[in-house]
Amino acid sequence: NTGDDFEHFGLHISPDADTLLYTLADMNNTELGWGRRDETWNVAEAGRQVGLDTWFRLGDKDLAVHLYRSQRLGQGVSLTQVCRELCSRFNVDTHIVPMSDDAVRTQVESDIGVLSFQEYFVKNKCKPKVSAIHFKGIEVAAPSPAFLDSLEDEQLRAIIICPSNPFLSIDPILSLPTLRERIKKCGKPVIVVSPLVQGQSIKGPTVKIMRELDLLCDVRTIAELYQDIATAIVIDRQDEAATDDVAAMGLAVHSAAIVMNTLQDKIDLARTLINISQTL
Amino acid sequence: NTGDDFEHFGLHISPDADTLLYTLADMNNTELGWGRRDETWNVAEAGRQVGLDTWFRLGDKDLAVHLYRSQRLGQGVSLTQVCRELCSRFNVDTHIVPMSDDAVRTQVESDIGVLSFQEYFVKNKCKPKVSAIHFKGIEVAAPSPAFLDSLEDEQLRAIIICPSNPFLSIDPILSLPTLRERIKKCGKPVIVVSPLVQGQSIKGPTVKIMRELDLLCDVRTIAELYQDIATAIVIDRQDEAATDDVAAMGLAVHSAAIVMNTLQDKIDLARTLINISQTL
Repeated sequence: NTGDDFEHFGLHISPDADTLLYTLADMNNTELGWGRRDETWNVAEAGRQVGLDTWFRLGDKDLAVHLYRSQRLGQGVSLTQVCRELCSRFNVDTHIVPMSDDAVRTQVESDIGVLSFQEYFVKNKCKPKVSAIHFKGIEVAAPSPAFLDSLEDEQLRAIIICPSNPFLSIDPILSLPTLRERIKKCGKPVIVVSPLVQGQSIKGPTVKIMRELDLLCDVRTIAELYQDIATAIVIDRQDEAATDDVAAMGLAVHSAAIVMNTLQDKIDLARTLINISQTL
Repeated sequence: NTGDDFEHFGLHISPDADTLLYTLADMNNTELGWGRRDETWNVAEAGRQVGLDTWFRLGDKDLAVHLYRSQRLGQGVSLTQVCRELCSRFNVDTHIVPMSDDAVRTQVESDIGVLSFQEYFVKNKCKPKVSAIHFKGIEVAAPSPAFLDSLEDEQLRAIIICPSNPFLSIDPILSLPTLRERIKKCGKPVIVVSPLVQGQSIKGPTVKIMRELDLLCDVRTIAELYQDIATAIVIDRQDEAATDDVAAMGLAVHSAAIVMNTLQDKIDLARTLINISQTL
């Protein structure tokens, strides 16, 4: 998802791609929950004296990545290529592919005005009441070629929609022109992992936003969001009572422990998802 | 002089303004001869791992200033205003005024191709042979309003052209449209301090460039460069033999100790220049 991307101090920042990069490189800052491990804050410290905006905290090591990305983009290289180069520099074998090389910017309509994603999420800590979410530039954005290639790759076995925020993190991707059609056309199982457990968000403002958008906060509503493309949905064991209701929508329903606190939890859920994909 | 300005990693860097700022704020790095005192290099260190270009070294504290400037320019604020804000933040009472709010970029034609100023000066350490120097954008650049105001300020007593590189540091300013005429029109004494002593540069590649441009490396040639606008020239005592020759060009010639190694040297020369200005 590059709807979270933004330009700050003239730099191009890609928070989602960076989080993946740092996590897969085992360099993520587990204390903060974002940014890089063993981070230092010398620039931010000096920035305070100069009067630099401090609501988006930039660590020194993190900043080096933003400088690199900004330089490469300025040289005309695509965001996809920059991601590839960063993965290579950090010895990450997994392909991190941005949804698009074109600028898409998530904008949150709220009770305090229209906010960029970072203004909503970081600066205002998700407190404003959301009335609508737009993805500026989406109409003319093309899915990145590497993204399309992966959808058409014969080795592709399944598409997993992780328990991310459906409105802020998944919808920007699915709203790319032709994307939903291409996912359907590729014919591979699409497995959705519910971001809700017992009507509560696993993480972040999902439920808060659902309430503000007058949606029921249950797995059935989640299933509806993805109904046109999903093959299966994985709900938490605690939500098993909803199985028949969701299955009636034409989806395969599986239950598992979907709250991931430890690395082992993540490995277990990943294995479960692979196993499920083989049954579809 | 903003001909040295450049965009690097998406940031707007103003080396000349920053050098003035750090020096007047008594924060300059006297060991390195550039940048800020007590500097740290965490971003550059992390940048090395990412593959960031390292030929232009950016300290963490220095970087904070570039981030601030880039952000403010991105918000549509003029470079003049950014300089004003930075002076205020660093408690510098002196007005540091950029020559122009428009982009002017010094380009050096050399035996290895056309180089930006920083590529010539920093990346290639002034080694390439210079055949010509251009100021890209100069034809459509306006002198900054604050610069013009200072020329028309009734409190202005004299204009001092410091012993900087005439081709790289002074000529960008004097090449601004209407500038030479405005300087003449303001009617105040213009005092040039020679950048040469006994045919050698006080600092930097002045003499090297003069040779490459087939110019004689003497104070007479310097006087010729500024002849149309200068009232007086201050040469080093060691060059007193040239006095009559230069005076014949219609300039008042003063001699002094113009090599500044210590702060006291600088104070002494400044006092001398003020005294000279009062005789003109």
